[in-house]
Amino acid sequence: MSNFSKYLELHSESIQKAIRAVTDRSFYAHWPEIPSGKIYGETAQAEGEERFKAMINSIFTFPHQSGTVSSTVGEEQSPYGFPMGILYPRFDIDETIKKSVIAQKTWKAISASERAAILLEVLERASKKFFDIAFATQHTTGQGFMMSFQASGPHAFDRALEAIAVGLKSLQSFESSVTWVKPMGKMEVTVQKEFVSVPKGIGVVVGCSTFPLWNSLPGMFANIITGNTTIAKTHPLSVLPMAIFVHSAQETLVSLGVDPHIIQIVVDSKDQPKTIELCSHPDVQIIDYTGSTKFGNVLEEIAQKNKKVIFTEKAGVNSVLIDSVKSLDAVADNLAFSISLYSGQMCTAPQNIFIPKDGIQTSDGSISFDEVAQTIVAKVQQLATNPKAGAGTLGALQNNDTYNRVKEVTTVGGTVLLESQKIEQPNFESARSFSPVVIQLDQKDSTIYSKEWFGPIAFVIPVDTAEKGIEVMSDLIRKEGALSASLYTQNPSIEEKATEEIVESGAPLSINFTGPIWVNQSASFSDMHGSGASPAGNATFSDLSFVSNRYNVIGVRKVS
Amino acid sequence: MSNFSKYLELHSESIQKAIRAVTDRSFYAHWPEIPSGKIYGETAQAEGEERFKAMINSIFTFPHQSGTVSSTVGEEQSPYGFPMGILYPRFDIDETIKKSVIAQKTWKAISASERAAILLEVLERASKKFFDIAFATQHTTGQGFMMSFQASGPHAFDRALEAIAVGLKSLQSFESSVTWVKPMGKMEVTVQKEFVSVPKGIGVVVGCSTFPLWNSLPGMFANIITGNTTIAKTHPLSVLPMAIFVHSAQETLVSLGVDPHIIQIVVDSKDQPKTIELCSHPDVQIIDYTGSTKFGNVLEEIAQKNKKVIFTEKAGVNSVLIDSVKSLDAVADNLAFSISLYSGQMCTAPQNIFIPKDGIQTSDGSISFDEVAQTIVAKVQQLATNPKAGAGTLGALQNNDTYNRVKEVTTVGGTVLLESQKIEQPNFESARSFSPVVIQLDQKDSTIYSKEWFGPIAFVIPVDTAEKGIEVMSDLIRKEGALSASLYTQNPSIEEKATEEIVESGAPLSINFTGPIWVNQSASFSDMHGSGASPAGNATFSDLSFVSNRYNVIGVRKVS
Repeated sequence: MSNFSKYLELHSESIQKAIRAVTDRSFYAHWPEIPSGKIYGETAQAEGEERFKAMINSIFTFPHQSGTVSSTVGEEQSPYGFPMGILYPRFDIDETIKKSVIAQKTWKAISASERAAILLEVLERASKKFFDIAFATQHTTGQGFMMSFQASGPHAFDRALEAIAVGLKSLQSFESSVTWVKPMGKMEVTVQKEFVSVPKGIGVVVGCSTFPLWNSLPGMFANIITGNTTIAKTHPLSVLPMAIFVHSAQETLVSLGVDPHIIQIVVDSKDQPKTIELCSHPDVQIIDYTGSTKFGNVLEEIAQKNKKVIFTEKAGVNSVLIDSVKSLDAVADNLAFSISLYSGQMCTAPQNIFIPKDGIQTSDGSISFDEVAQTIVAKVQQLATNPKAGAGTLGALQNNDTYNRVKEVTTVGGTVLLESQKIEQPNFESARSFSPVVIQLDQKDSTIYSKEWFGPIAFVIPVDTAEKGIEVMSDLIRKEGALSASLYTQNPSIEEKATEEIVESGAPLSINFTGPIWVNQSASFSDMHGSGASPAGNATFSDLSFVSNRYNVIGVRKVS
Repeated sequence: MSNFSKYLELHSESIQKAIRAVTDRSFYAHWPEIPSGKIYGETAQAEGEERFKAMINSIFTFPHQSGTVSSTVGEEQSPYGFPMGILYPRFDIDETIKKSVIAQKTWKAISASERAAILLEVLERASKKFFDIAFATQHTTGQGFMMSFQASGPHAFDRALEAIAVGLKSLQSFESSVTWVKPMGKMEVTVQKEFVSVPKGIGVVVGCSTFPLWNSLPGMFANIITGNTTIAKTHPLSVLPMAIFVHSAQETLVSLGVDPHIIQIVVDSKDQPKTIELCSHPDVQIIDYTGSTKFGNVLEEIAQKNKKVIFTEKAGVNSVLIDSVKSLDAVADNLAFSISLYSGQMCTAPQNIFIPKDGIQTSDGSISFDEVAQTIVAKVQQLATNPKAGAGTLGALQNNDTYNRVKEVTTVGGTVLLESQKIEQPNFESARSFSPVVIQLDQKDSTIYSKEWFGPIAFVIPVDTAEKGIEVMSDLIRKEGALSASLYTQNPSIEEKATEEIVESGAPLSINFTGPIWVNQSASFSDMHGSGASPAGNATFSDLSFVSNRYNVIGVRKVS
């Protein structure tokens, strides 16, 4: 085990720091979020881009993932306007499962601390591929380059380290052995006890097309830190970022003498999907899923019928309430960025902006509903057409369904305050890039605003009063779920009432966000992602239930 | 809140001790298990018995549980041979739920530490009723007096305190507020964050007829420590112990200024059961259940369809493997007690005793299968007919179904090695009290021994080898579930193999138990009850998942 002791020594301080951060919820980042040459090496970006380009129109192989490959599969298209032409091996599902089962036998025998050290080494070595992953993310998801780097690189890896930290903290919450001595009058009974944390089995993580690493790594690392093995089932439209990660991870594991099949990948296609077959397999005991509510419900049913653990992140409807502000410009700037970032293709992006019909209070007096709406619209338009920031902030639409949704929404009712327009992406003239559409609805148009319109779509909605706005928002959270909620108020009683009701309804709340912090971003080690408490899903990245449900504690008592 | 501070001060040391005990899993008991006059007061037992007798043939009321009472209900019969004649109010379900919802609003606003102190005060005051509860338990469950005292008194209350401790530990695992400062080059962003632990709702705890407090208090206290309210749905045949407890708890809560409806009771009847109506109510978000697999599956389906949290303890098949021993007498003594204690009516009682067909090794040479079987039979018979210990150890059969099972089992196959016989219970000549039946089966008789025969029924079963025994046991655990498993061996390789396979199958294992410690007893603060890992159920009393699934953590972030 000397191989592992080395990494235990190398990484123990980092792991302790991560555990301290999740415990006190203070700011922590293991990997810097700036894609700067000074941090990551002056040539790192260019080299990453070169390696990315070499992958286009080629066959991607996993030399350390063994098993029969019947054929290849690959249907990724860059949302920036070109086919990726990458083919991946189509692994046999039964074989993949068998290799996972075998790998688990040795993996779970390694101590939790050693597992943590090994996994951090996996992450450290894969982090050398941050730029490869960034370009891969940009050209599968449509994210702008900066976001691609952050979301699939440092932020996703920090979430993985967070899962390691919370998992280890949970596993170490109780002593794993004790000499138990019960006094019984003049005698005593001594029992030697061991408490074994037994992993549930294999954990399949079903990825989405928009955040192929950020949404998948937490579940994968929560699985493997707790002794399970894991299989990443990628979305057919967004494979490459995970492929690069798994390729690197397996290489690291092999070099450390660990069975690389603790982390495997399964790539499928839209015509021949493999998710249900994978998740239904009896050896699969844990499912993590990010995606549509409809398919999420199918997986939940499979899990429930077969007593599997499932963590989901499904659709939600995120709302904002503006009651009163210090500076409307600062608020509108912040909201415009939140709506525009990656064209609203974040599960945490705000969609419904509720504003009292009689307007809001500011430090400089009151402002009418129309003026508030127009200020937001102006800021959205200003950002979209900003030659420096617009295209990069918006990125491109991952798929045509989202593009069609942007067109459809203008036909369902309400008044279009801002039309969506084509945005030029430098060097990518065929990019599927469009600015947000902003539509004014009525309070009574709940059939429109109580569903998720995923993409660059925002509604401004007059409500009778701020109190009514709180009621409508809370109701939406309870019925439709939400992954974020946002409030702007300078009124303590509104703040108190909204906080109480929104928290009770089950959504995390952000109050008076202005400046460089946005409701749609959650910070690793401090913010949970969502809450697990609304119909939008029960995954959290990462509270105790996110890890403690992945293993059982089994006692062995011995009298000697 | 000065009322609560007083109890915070009074109980903080005890709560810290309990948290330390669950953390290091060492021996701890808050309430002494011996029903001794020196500990509990010389007149306590007599007074308890007197109060118990006064309850017979009377109407039991809950002065602090308000709500419409349409009629009374009561069908308890003492297994010692007389009708209890106690009538309980039949509370309206909708009203009960409404009162629970109202009570939760104030309850969850009290801090977790204060909740813990209040709940320990509830337990302390109820512990003054240990003897009342003991007699009530004896005459509803059929347990012997000593066990009635321990299981419904100190042991059950220790399990409740354990749930408080694990719940508080879980709630306090992460800081609940932080000033988060993110450095961003020359500037920084400061966000004030609160993390609110939000209870899921109402937790209904469905009790069983054999352990009306021991199996119910952990779930109830796990519910209320995490800010939920709780409703005890008692088994129609075993109400009184919980009635006495809830009566006392509500009295204490009122005197502390806490809404007593955080803990309510619902009594129903076999003809008009209320469990499904209660558990199906949308405000009920957590279900704890102990009982048959069949009805457990019904509740699981209700829970799964409606996204409720459910913890179950259902039927299991518990096995013993004897490979080699130091002293067969010591082993047979221990096994005879485990089989006889409360007539095998414990979910952890051993049923199947696997013995290699060629016999076992002892310190004094080898002993044939037949001799091992006969030694066990002799010890069982000896204990049952022991004038001092027999009747008290066996107690009485809770219901006629169990009595009928004892008769039925002799007709299904195998060779009866020991017939069940009527046991005299001093002062209770009509007691439903019977000694264990022991039947020899074949290894191939798995249709008989792979189901639970709840009651004083044991099988001795020859297996080809000890290794084969391990295989059969592990297979049974995986397929049928088990709440205990027991191994006797002096062979390190058998011990290693059995430990690995049985733990992997999901049952807690006890090795070489002789003397005053038994496989069917688990120690609060140290042993989990079961493992949550087999088809016998997912409840554990109490690991992290037993508490952390009862609440969500919701973040509130504010920029100021």
